[in-house]
Amino acid sequence: MAVTMRDVAREAGVSPKTVSNVMNGYPYIRAETRTRVLAAIDALGYRMNLSARNLKSGRTGVIALAVPELTNPYFAELADAAIAAAGEHGLTVMIETTGADRERELTALARPRGHLVDGLLYSPLGLGPEDVDELNTSTPMVLLGERIFHGPVDHVMIDNVEGTKAVVRHLLDQGRRRIAVIGVRPGEKIGTAAIRYDAYAETLTEYGVPVPTELTVSGGSWHRSSGADAIAELLASGQRFDAVLALNDVLALGAIRALTARGIRIPDDVAVAGFDNIDEASYSTPTLTTVDPNRVHIARTAVELLVQRMAGDTSEHRELVAPYALHARESTVGAN
Amino acid sequence: MAVTMRDVAREAGVSPKTVSNVMNGYPYIRAETRTRVLAAIDALGYRMNLSARNLKSGRTGVIALAVPELTNPYFAELADAAIAAAGEHGLTVMIETTGADRERELTALARPRGHLVDGLLYSPLGLGPEDVDELNTSTPMVLLGERIFHGPVDHVMIDNVEGTKAVVRHLLDQGRRRIAVIGVRPGEKIGTAAIRYDAYAETLTEYGVPVPTELTVSGGSWHRSSGADAIAELLASGQRFDAVLALNDVLALGAIRALTARGIRIPDDVAVAGFDNIDEASYSTPTLTTVDPNRVHIARTAVELLVQRMAGDTSEHRELVAPYALHARESTVGAN
Repeated sequence: MAVTMRDVAREAGVSPKTVSNVMNGYPYIRAETRTRVLAAIDALGYRMNLSARNLKSGRTGVIALAVPELTNPYFAELADAAIAAAGEHGLTVMIETTGADRERELTALARPRGHLVDGLLYSPLGLGPEDVDELNTSTPMVLLGERIFHGPVDHVMIDNVEGTKAVVRHLLDQGRRRIAVIGVRPGEKIGTAAIRYDAYAETLTEYGVPVPTELTVSGGSWHRSSGADAIAELLASGQRFDAVLALNDVLALGAIRALTARGIRIPDDVAVAGFDNIDEASYSTPTLTTVDPNRVHIARTAVELLVQRMAGDTSEHRELVAPYALHARESTVGAN
Repeated sequence: MAVTMRDVAREAGVSPKTVSNVMNGYPYIRAETRTRVLAAIDALGYRMNLSARNLKSGRTGVIALAVPELTNPYFAELADAAIAAAGEHGLTVMIETTGADRERELTALARPRGHLVDGLLYSPLGLGPEDVDELNTSTPMVLLGERIFHGPVDHVMIDNVEGTKAVVRHLLDQGRRRIAVIGVRPGEKIGTAAIRYDAYAETLTEYGVPVPTELTVSGGSWHRSSGADAIAELLASGQRFDAVLALNDVLALGAIRALTARGIRIPDDVAVAGFDNIDEASYSTPTLTTVDPNRVHIARTAVELLVQRMAGDTSEHRELVAPYALHARESTVGAN
């Protein structure tokens, strides 16, 4: 015989209304009560009915967040910010990773989530304007972070262009003229790397400084190891450089390690700057100058937009840019 | 009219068998084919039938991984390892966070996942022996990582005791006798912090070194900021110490920053060691001596056990301990 909500309420020693509130993810329920109700649901195997309810109402109280990878602290910290923001709406977040590869990102987009989740926060690295049609999924979706293109969905963006320009201007204002750039992806005309590289080149040009293309180092994966490798490559080339712009923070931290290990002084000999403002950037030696894209703002805004769409909002799609901040730290201005 | 698998196959230009293979998560399908099939499923709204299939077979091809938080790189890197290991079995991983709080961990355990996932990898920080009954959920589950207790589930464990003893012996062998320990949770008799602290105290006793309880600093959250705060507290106390054992790596990295900022030389004045071997530990200045709990081994073993349980294995529950490794780096042995 099918287990009813009334059975669960009796088992948990609460009213059926309370069981319903827990199942609908209402935030203002005592943790102890919620635990008791969920334990009763589990003990009685109320799953089938829950699933039936989901089929009927189409609501699960769960949203998905798809990011390239979690080993990059930027995305791990973004995920925790999204979990906190979703929690304020009584929503649980399930996180998926796509691997930062366009093919896999398209697969993730097309994955039939069906009744698993009510909505999707999606942070692609490799998709471009030609993939816009793929964004027409039936699951409500908000794009976040890394790309600038116009699609049929809401989009909360990192200010890649102005953020990069600010940090390059900062390096130029410190008197640096031979600014190497690491983490470039030469094949890609679109994507985060291309946007940040173009903003770097444009800023140099605005200052009348020639773009030193011989100081451009590509690095497929944006990890600490690639940052260290890029420095080895630059030094081996014999080219002179007085600053390194890393296209993200972990690349910068790998570069700092490689420079320090060779006795090259930061910032006296070479200044280093990154992009992301991950927690680690405040604790490295030297601390890292970087651009904060404002992940808390991005996560909160994206969750709010998604909640509106899940509630049936069909108004015109919005493109919002999060306010960035430049943090000048020891890696460019020294310890005092 | 209901969309059939045949409709999806026609739309995608493949055989119904290929559609079935994609839906069952078979690994050996060309990415391009998979994308096309998933796009066709999405375009035709094949969800309802997929969901019906899930209700019938009880399989989704998705497993959940519950970890305390992702901002701690150990768990982010563990998550990526689990995603890679699950991918080899054609499974997708959805990640949940619990917040490292016993109450919230119990809630996560009791959450009705129903037809959302086929199994659960669960990495608790705060649960203890008294919570064993809560592990009797109907979803197949494997515990990983952080705790030693005997329950009605498979368990892949970090070698907290031997790993901690190895790093404390290493500090003692370097001549350190006043070893401060940071990240202790005084109220807890169980849990990772307590296990590692007890192993530290036991090792000192084995060496005939008095346990310097005045050098014990508690830190509720295991973040870089708490590591830095712990050093400030130790220095303010006026107590002499020649080494710091941090109960995880990010605490150690926060401690290194706080010591360096005050001009205290590492390891000359104070040696520092951690636990986790996160990627950052190889790139910090100085690089960090730490214990590698072997997250790739833990993730692979846990996924394999879970896959067996999901396939109906009802044999006795197993408790496996992953082989740890000590990495002695600059923070205890210097740069040469």
